[in-house]
Amino acid sequence: MSDSIKYVLDESRIPKTWYNIIADLPAPPPAVLHPCTMQPVGPDDLAPLFPMSLILQEVSTDREVEIPTPVREIYRQWRPSPLFRARRLEQVLDTPAKIYYKYEGVSPAGSHKPNTAIAQAFYNKEAGVKRIVTETGAGQWGSSLALAGSLFDLQIEIYMVRVSYNQKPYRRALMETYGARCVASPSNETNSGRAILAKNPDHPGSLGIAISEAVEVAAQADDTKYALGSVLNHVLLHQTVIGVEAIEQLAMADDYPDVVVACAGGGSNFAGLAFPFIGAGLRGGPKPRIVAIEPASCPTLTRGKYAYDFGDTAHLTPLMKMHTLGSAFTPPGLHAGGLRYHGMGALVSHCAELGLMEARAYHQIACFEAGVQFARAEGIVPAPESNHAVRGAIDEALRCKAEGKAETILFGLSGHGHFDMQAYTDYFAGKLVDQAYDESELAMALSGLPSLP
Amino acid sequence: MSDSIKYVLDESRIPKTWYNIIADLPAPPPAVLHPCTMQPVGPDDLAPLFPMSLILQEVSTDREVEIPTPVREIYRQWRPSPLFRARRLEQVLDTPAKIYYKYEGVSPAGSHKPNTAIAQAFYNKEAGVKRIVTETGAGQWGSSLALAGSLFDLQIEIYMVRVSYNQKPYRRALMETYGARCVASPSNETNSGRAILAKNPDHPGSLGIAISEAVEVAAQADDTKYALGSVLNHVLLHQTVIGVEAIEQLAMADDYPDVVVACAGGGSNFAGLAFPFIGAGLRGGPKPRIVAIEPASCPTLTRGKYAYDFGDTAHLTPLMKMHTLGSAFTPPGLHAGGLRYHGMGALVSHCAELGLMEARAYHQIACFEAGVQFARAEGIVPAPESNHAVRGAIDEALRCKAEGKAETILFGLSGHGHFDMQAYTDYFAGKLVDQAYDESELAMALSGLPSLP
Repeated sequence: MSDSIKYVLDESRIPKTWYNIIADLPAPPPAVLHPCTMQPVGPDDLAPLFPMSLILQEVSTDREVEIPTPVREIYRQWRPSPLFRARRLEQVLDTPAKIYYKYEGVSPAGSHKPNTAIAQAFYNKEAGVKRIVTETGAGQWGSSLALAGSLFDLQIEIYMVRVSYNQKPYRRALMETYGARCVASPSNETNSGRAILAKNPDHPGSLGIAISEAVEVAAQADDTKYALGSVLNHVLLHQTVIGVEAIEQLAMADDYPDVVVACAGGGSNFAGLAFPFIGAGLRGGPKPRIVAIEPASCPTLTRGKYAYDFGDTAHLTPLMKMHTLGSAFTPPGLHAGGLRYHGMGALVSHCAELGLMEARAYHQIACFEAGVQFARAEGIVPAPESNHAVRGAIDEALRCKAEGKAETILFGLSGHGHFDMQAYTDYFAGKLVDQAYDESELAMALSGLPSLP
Repeated sequence: MSDSIKYVLDESRIPKTWYNIIADLPAPPPAVLHPCTMQPVGPDDLAPLFPMSLILQEVSTDREVEIPTPVREIYRQWRPSPLFRARRLEQVLDTPAKIYYKYEGVSPAGSHKPNTAIAQAFYNKEAGVKRIVTETGAGQWGSSLALAGSLFDLQIEIYMVRVSYNQKPYRRALMETYGARCVASPSNETNSGRAILAKNPDHPGSLGIAISEAVEVAAQADDTKYALGSVLNHVLLHQTVIGVEAIEQLAMADDYPDVVVACAGGGSNFAGLAFPFIGAGLRGGPKPRIVAIEPASCPTLTRGKYAYDFGDTAHLTPLMKMHTLGSAFTPPGLHAGGLRYHGMGALVSHCAELGLMEARAYHQIACFEAGVQFARAEGIVPAPESNHAVRGAIDEALRCKAEGKAETILFGLSGHGHFDMQAYTDYFAGKLVDQAYDESELAMALSGLPSLP
């Protein structure tokens, strides 16, 4: 059996700039609106929550944005991340396709999230911020920001959805090991938390509530800012190191993808891998098919409406035009917690509207099946979110087999599943369920979208 | 703050040979004895359990043992493993010492164990073996052999100590994800298991019992062999890729250690890092201090007797001369399950007797304290076993500070703690206990050592 191949870049070739797709798009994305005035938000509107350097990145139109040296120095611990040719998987599938994957699970927190957590911590530290407050659901983002906080000597406070806080004690232990403070949300520490607990002391929490608590704390203290792990332009920007490196590594293999596959929740992992390829196509290079994979139980791109909506359920955020299931939509329980968000990052939604990409939705059992097949061939156990990309890539490889085409497939393996083994346990025990969302709830949530003047 | 530095070797520089310290020792280690005849065992005695290629490695006196190409090809997935200069930790400790660590947690199973699991699976496959049976306690070894089995298409059957089987469902899920069969021991599948269950249907199991079950199964079937994850010469041999790479990486930094620190349970992680340095010293090179760290609750090297003893509690193995607490000794509960073994590999014991190394014992709370300090400075959460080495290295660095010496310290970070977060949870909750072993039990176990004619 031929063995899988690793393409390693020297650390001197960690990208010196992030790639900003806005510079290459035929039309700029629609403006972000203030929910009271319905006018485009300006930097000052966001200043209570983010340092100005990140706000300027949010609206930047420069193609290249310099990665600060201290950020690159920390990236060196695990970057450039490896690109693998999955030859053993190709042989198991008996496909003529070539399958490559870019593996982000080599970061200390185990996913792509530190690419932006480190950057956000740096800019906050530079701006004199002492404390960053955030929310986390599944815990990948919270543990990455906790890591970043420990490296930049920043206090990190994480509002963790109570049901996850109780169900995922090991994610919490990871955040605490990095020195972060982890609070079950709803909590008694904020007005929004107390209001909810007054009505229901046993409230299980939600990402929307946790966002409200984090934003409330950040807005009140001068030395404190807020941070988000996906969705926003600057977060997607920081993740583009993934795709920039992948292009260089594929060049080492003298190859270029026909298809690029990545899973998409808020869109930062997807954009990180795909945007540099979309951009190269827009600048006259080859145009691979770009495929986003999302969960069938939370099908933002494939079933959502492209409309202005709030980023949170409590309606504290500005309005963004995006593919949304409605901020009132609650997706069914799903092991890929990182893909369980009602909206899609505005830039990814904009690319979908421009016809620059495709989207496909899968149920979770088929994704775990693909993840186990991948683990047995390649040795790495993927995170449940990443299993969606694995399923997408395997299906493309099987299509190539059926069509007799030797295409080149690149997919993003965004993280490992070491903290998600309960999901694998449930899968092997036959306890995993493919739960459909409630059609009437979706209709209701979509009908509740904010109306514009 | 200056940043930590990673030393990366190109994959072409994965060692082509393992290093066999026996070739450089001033005296050969004492022979392994057959418990019935008290005569040295020959290859034929071991043939029912191991393929001949591994038996020949067990007794080899060649300095260099070639690493087969298929093994090197799989090593490439994560090897050469990174060597880091822990500059952030140095600054936190305010020490003039330079601290380097060699990190084996980058393997797909998360520790150094795949270095030998891959090799053992290769030699078994080459010999036509269809199935390998083994035991596992904490689960690091079991999951590594499961990984190796999936890559070489071998059936893997793992007898897992029942109490761990129930307490560590995620380790079990990892083994099953790799396609291995995991059986709670004592089981109804073997005579030795049934005999124990007949007396006590709720028996929690022990490593000794699991070894008995695995050996029984392997000895009965022609297509089945047994595998061990530490202690034996060939296992230690396979781990020497760690130290061979480290010497080359330190040369990139134009450095050489004054002190080498590693944790030691059965000895394979310790030997893997330390033997190439000891060997270089024996061949006329510099002689760094070599320090093994063991748990105070299972202090084989610091409190054991150097004597012939059985490798298992059921007395099915040959007799090896080693530092032992007696095969009847049961160490107290300890989160670093990988260090909870009554004996020490014969080659490590021999080196200790020859005065080529030192040993030191630590209680676990001090080790977790060091592990958390390390995680906050360097970003990686160590396995509980590795925390012992971190403690040892930090204490050496603090000694350097007190003495005003700018020594170079190298330590082995044998694995990450992703599957051991319960231990960190207990540590933060103040539930971790430093349990001393029972002095009268130790005296009893030592008095029961086999007497030689």
